[in-house]
This record gives sequence, C-alpha cells and structure tokens, in this order.
Amino acid sequence: MSTSDISRLDEQDPLASGRQQFHLPADTIYLDGNSLGLMSYATRERVSEVTATQWGEHLITSWNRHKWIDLPQRVGNKIGRLIGAADGQVVCCDSISVNLFKVLAAALYIRPGRNQILSTVDNFPTDLYMVQGLEQLIGAGNCHLVMVEEDELETSINEKTAAVLATEVNFRTGRRLELQSLTAAAQAAGALMIADLAHSAGVMPVELDNWQVDFAIGCTYKYMNGGPGAPAFVYAAQRHHTALQQPLCGWMGHVRPFDFSPHYEAADDMSQFLSGTPPVISMSAVDAALEAFDGVSLAEVRTKSIQLSELFHSLVEQHGLSTELRLISPKDPVTRGSQLSYQHEHAYGICQALIEAGVIADFRAPDFLRFGFAPLYNSYADVWNAVELLKEVISSEAHLDRRWQERNPVT
Amino acid sequence: MSTSDISRLDEQDPLASGRQQFHLPADTIYLDGNSLGLMSYATRERVSEVTATQWGEHLITSWNRHKWIDLPQRVGNKIGRLIGAADGQVVCCDSISVNLFKVLAAALYIRPGRNQILSTVDNFPTDLYMVQGLEQLIGAGNCHLVMVEEDELETSINEKTAAVLATEVNFRTGRRLELQSLTAAAQAAGALMIADLAHSAGVMPVELDNWQVDFAIGCTYKYMNGGPGAPAFVYAAQRHHTALQQPLCGWMGHVRPFDFSPHYEAADDMSQFLSGTPPVISMSAVDAALEAFDGVSLAEVRTKSIQLSELFHSLVEQHGLSTELRLISPKDPVTRGSQLSYQHEHAYGICQALIEAGVIADFRAPDFLRFGFAPLYNSYADVWNAVELLKEVISSEAHLDRRWQERNPVT
Repeated sequence: MSTSDISRLDEQDPLASGRQQFHLPADTIYLDGNSLGLMSYATRERVSEVTATQWGEHLITSWNRHKWIDLPQRVGNKIGRLIGAADGQVVCCDSISVNLFKVLAAALYIRPGRNQILSTVDNFPTDLYMVQGLEQLIGAGNCHLVMVEEDELETSINEKTAAVLATEVNFRTGRRLELQSLTAAAQAAGALMIADLAHSAGVMPVELDNWQVDFAIGCTYKYMNGGPGAPAFVYAAQRHHTALQQPLCGWMGHVRPFDFSPHYEAADDMSQFLSGTPPVISMSAVDAALEAFDGVSLAEVRTKSIQLSELFHSLVEQHGLSTELRLISPKDPVTRGSQLSYQHEHAYGICQALIEAGVIADFRAPDFLRFGFAPLYNSYADVWNAVELLKEVISSEAHLDRRWQERNPVT
Repeated sequence: MSTSDISRLDEQDPLASGRQQFHLPADTIYLDGNSLGLMSYATRERVSEVTATQWGEHLITSWNRHKWIDLPQRVGNKIGRLIGAADGQVVCCDSISVNLFKVLAAALYIRPGRNQILSTVDNFPTDLYMVQGLEQLIGAGNCHLVMVEEDELETSINEKTAAVLATEVNFRTGRRLELQSLTAAAQAAGALMIADLAHSAGVMPVELDNWQVDFAIGCTYKYMNGGPGAPAFVYAAQRHHTALQQPLCGWMGHVRPFDFSPHYEAADDMSQFLSGTPPVISMSAVDAALEAFDGVSLAEVRTKSIQLSELFHSLVEQHGLSTELRLISPKDPVTRGSQLSYQHEHAYGICQALIEAGVIADFRAPDFLRFGFAPLYNSYADVWNAVELLKEVISSEAHLDRRWQERNPVT
C-alpha cells in the first residue's frame, strides 16, 4: 500500500464529496466521530437561524410558524429512515438514558409475569444503570437485571426474560452483535428485544422493521453529527402502539396537550414517549445535521467504513505496530462496528500524544485506545496519515510519561 | 395617568438599561415572557461560539477545555443564586417533567409509609401527569395523587401525605401561593415540600434555603430567557443529600462515571440527579442568558413586576375595559406572579388580533388571555401601548370572527 494507492481510493470514493459539508479543523485528523460527530455547515447555519430568527425575531409564534411543535416527530421520522423504521415509529427526545427508562417500563408492562432484563456486563454502563434504577424503584420481583457475557446472551434467554437489552456495537471493543438473530431468539422465547443503536445508527444499515425489533434507543451526536449532548431517539414497533404505557408521561405525551386537562390520557402514537417541551435549538441542530445523509446509501457507508478500518489495521501491521498495540476489536470486519480498539499499557499517553500531533482518537479506561471511522467525512488519506503519526508517537516514546489522571468524558 | 407619567416611570426605572441586552423585534410589544423569554445578545453570541468554535473547532477536547462536563453544576449554581439556594443544591438538566419524576421518587423514598402526593387540580398538567405516571408504575399503595383546590391545599395535608407538590405561581390565573407557610405546614405534618418554580424563578425573590423547601424544579425558558425548550433545573436541600435515591440513574449520576463500572453507585451530591450526557448547546445558552441577572436585585425585579401589572390593570379600568375583560388573577399584586389573566368569550380572537397589531400575549383554553411582565426588558411604555392597542382591537371588533382552532403550544 502506497500513497498513490491511497489517493486512488479517495478519488474513487462515492462518498468523498460528503466531506465538504463538514467543518474540519485545520491540521486535524478526526477519528473520534464515534464519540462526537463533526459539525456540518448546514447545522451551524440552522442553529444560527433558529436562535437569531426563529427565537429572537419570531418568538412564541414559531411554535406554529416554524412548526417547533412537530420537531420530535419530524426529526424522529428522519432518523427512522436511517434505521429501517417506517414513519411514525421514532421520536427524537430526551437522552438515551431517559428513553431507555420509558422503554424498559413499557416492555415489562407488555410482558407480565416476566421480570428479567437480560443484558451484557460490558454494555455501556448507562444502559445497565437505568435497569438498576428501575429495579430499585419497582422491586426485583418486577424488574431484575441479569448480566452475562456477550457470547452467552442468546443462550441465557429463558421464560423469565421480559426483554433482551443489547447494544448493537460495543462501545469499548467495537464488536457488533447480530440484532436480527438475537431478536428472533428473544421472541422465540417470548421475550422482547430492546436495541441500543448508539454506535450503529448512521454508520451501517439497521433494519428495525425488517428484523422485527421491538424497541430501540440511540443517540444523535455520534455518527449523526447532531452536536454535543444532542437529544436522543426512541423507536417502538407499530404493533406495540395500542398497548404502550410508559411512566414518564409529561404533557407533550398527552393525546390533547393543549386541553390542559388534569388527567393524563396517553396519545395513541409515538407522541406518548414525549415528556417535556422539546429543546428546540438542539433538536433543530439534529434536523439540519441529518441533511448530510440526503441521497446517501447506508450500504455504501458501511462498505467504506469497513475499508477504512481494514486499511487502518493493515497499516498498523505493515508498520510492525500490531504486537505492541493489541487489537481487541474483532478481526472480521463484518462482526465489528465502525471503530478499532487497541489495548496498550500506555494507551492514555499515546492518546494524548496523538492529540498533540493532530490525530484525535480517544482513550477508554483502563488501557484502550479507540479509533472511529466516520465515512461521511473521513478519507483514506486520514487513515494513512493517522497511522504514520501513530508510528511516530510510539517510536518517539513521547507518550511514556503521561499518566491517566484527568476525567475523560467522551463516550 | 398620562404619557408623560409613563415616560417618567421609564426614566426612573433602575432596571431600564437591562432592555438593551435583549433583541426586541421591531414594532413588537412582547408580553409573553412568562411563556418564552427574549433572546439576549449574549446568548446569541454564546450559541454561535459554542457551535462554531467549541464544537466545530475544538470538538471532543471541549469536554475538558471548555468544561462542558461541569455545565450542569455550573449553570445549576447560577440558577441557585436566583432562587435562594446555596451552591451545590441545584443542577441544570432534562425537562421539568423528567426532573419531577426523580424528585417524586426521591421524596417517597425518604417518607416511607406515606403514599400521597398532594397537589392542586389546577396545577400545570405535566406536574399532575408525572405523579399519575409514577402511580401507575409503582401502584397507588406506594404513590397516589390527591388533587384539591388551591384554598384547600394547606388543610388537606395529613399523615398519609408524603409530599405537597405546588407550583408557586398558577400558570392560568397567576395566583401566587405562599411557599414558606405551605412548606412549614407540610413539614409540621411530617410531609415534604416540592415546589415548581416555572412561573416564579427569575421574576421574584425565591428563598428555597430560608423557607426550608425540600425539593424544587423549574424551567429556564420563561423569565430566565434560556431559549425554547431549554434544559430545566432541580433543587434538593443539602440535608437530604445523604439519603437521596432517584431512579433515573444514568451514567452522569455515577460517583465515578469514567470508571464505566457495570454497577451503579450514586454520586453523593447533586450530580446524582443527572442522567444522560448534557445538551451542551442548549445549556450553554442558559448559562449565557443568566448573565442578564448580573448585578440585578430580584427585589427590584419584583417591585417593577408589580408596578407593570398594576399599571396595566389600572389602564384597562381607565379605558372602561374591565367589565368586558374579567380579571381572574388576584387583585392584590402580592398574591399573584408576574402575569395578568383575563377571561373573555372571544379571548382567542382578541389574542390573534393583538398579535397582528404587534402585541404578543397568549391565549389559554378555553377563554383566557394572559399578559406576562418581564421586568428585565418590559418598559412602562410597553404596558401603555399594549393597553391602547387592546382597546383598539376590542372596539374595532376585529376579533369576533376568529375561532380557536389551531393548537397553541405556549405554556
């Protein structure tokens, strides 16, 4: 592999033009889109327009004039198109954590007599914590978290399992679980499937409707580029809508919110997953960010994602770094998401030295280095240059005196 | 009262200069700050800087570099100064609805053996709905909503009351409840006090610590001018911190979030009220909006608020409109918040005609007209001109053919 090969790959990349839509800081190679996606120029414009004009000028009339009131459903449907969900099954609102709480309660309600939520011990912690919070609130007899290893997930489903809660792509290792077969296994045992799409939505084809997934949650600030802490989303399959019941029933989930009745009556559609007033500026940012997917095929995104990560690892091997950097992501790209994770005793120091060298990756305690690949804006040249710099950092030993001490909040 | 009297009032107004910090659309009199506050120029600048620079340029490094990670606590402390809360008792996060759910569960946990949440039938619906949602989830034996009229609230507290849930200022009538005496009555009966400050925070002195309130929630998009759907806040008195337990325990509420442990261990401070990743753009807007309160005395804000509303109603009377427009807010300004509500069979039509005439007020079903007074930017001239236009609208009968049909989402 040579620089001319790399140039050819970029020239032939059908997604290459997407990069122009995003702001890339000068002298930066950004391999952290799995944590926080880049800002698109359309998003910057929209945030400015919503703030200065819709809010600043049109004020309260914007609820109708600019349809703020329908944002959760409108943005939800746009997200739905990226995760294989027909319209009316996704709303944008709250955080993953809060949305998961709603979904857990809803799932337990439609699976009476079953109390177990089966998940993986290596799931992203907030997913596990939300189950623990619900368990403490309603009692282990009604909700009990069972954590197993990823490989034991399918075989651990039993007649007490109300729902399997799995994150499609592991935040640490990048391992991708087969949601379709997992869903089939859960349902064959009478359980429901709850999928967390934090690390898959927007970077690979997800087919919630086709796979018959029951509920899903996910965030919009990673591969969807919605901005730091942008509102999350929640999916509930149409077939569950008539039996839906979730406890965070705020006024936006009422069937007629503007009647201001003292008695809650749930909307008979996805609106019932809404609680409070939508955060208009942040949600408008998500809406604008999703424009970068217009005309984009997620199959092409996935193909490029795999090519980028395969190129990265082959260059790591070519530079003789693969002994020192132990790959903990699956070797088979089909079974991983859009990231590569390596273990190294000086992972923190390497990550800091890389950032100073202009390569933004991230560190995960205690000793993991993560590189994320965002096909909408990462180029093959990014990968080539990143591995060149990675090699320089490691050979210069610039990382050896850096110890993990700061809080590192990227997820 | 004459125009020269009005000019003198504005000249002598110690808060008059505050108006320059806000963007007021041309030819608009904005009397709807009780629904959505104006955008300050500092907020517009901050949103732009956070989007283009902190996110766009500095990306993931901003979690440390721009201290995104501490935003909920930092903004929370700023809010705390406006509601009489010493540092470390307020965090900014989620919506009022979601925060109320946390607080309800926390209150029930520290009052075992009591299951009733006592509130008013005319409370803002989302407050009632959240109790109903929790009741359905954990059973009426553990949580039961009791709704009474405002005048019966204090006398309805009994040995089953776990908490009194009251909104200080009624969203419809503007009536202000005496939180201090209500808190004393609740606590004398062994109950806790949960205050909703949606219509009082930022527009009148609130003394949560002094009044010994147990928990409070509130929004930042009304008198705090945080922007449409801006994140809300939650207060828990220091004395409860060691016994706190709330069920929406996301990863940001963990004592060591970046350990990514599979087992939840609550932070021993207000951080445990956090769930998901903070919405950075929206929360930064709140942070910037609060700068408008620098050096401002809430006692002066309250004095001006009362003067503005008293002036409004006296002009309504002077123009002979007070028979047709029936005041449903308390006549005594001490017992109302910063709004006046009038009943009129054509309230909807009048509101629409007023908006077209440049006066933004709002309508509440079925027949209420609300005028809100925001002392940071409303002038006495605003009030004078608004009543002049109100008189014109009513006498022209321009409102008679307008029927309430659209959704009107202002709260």
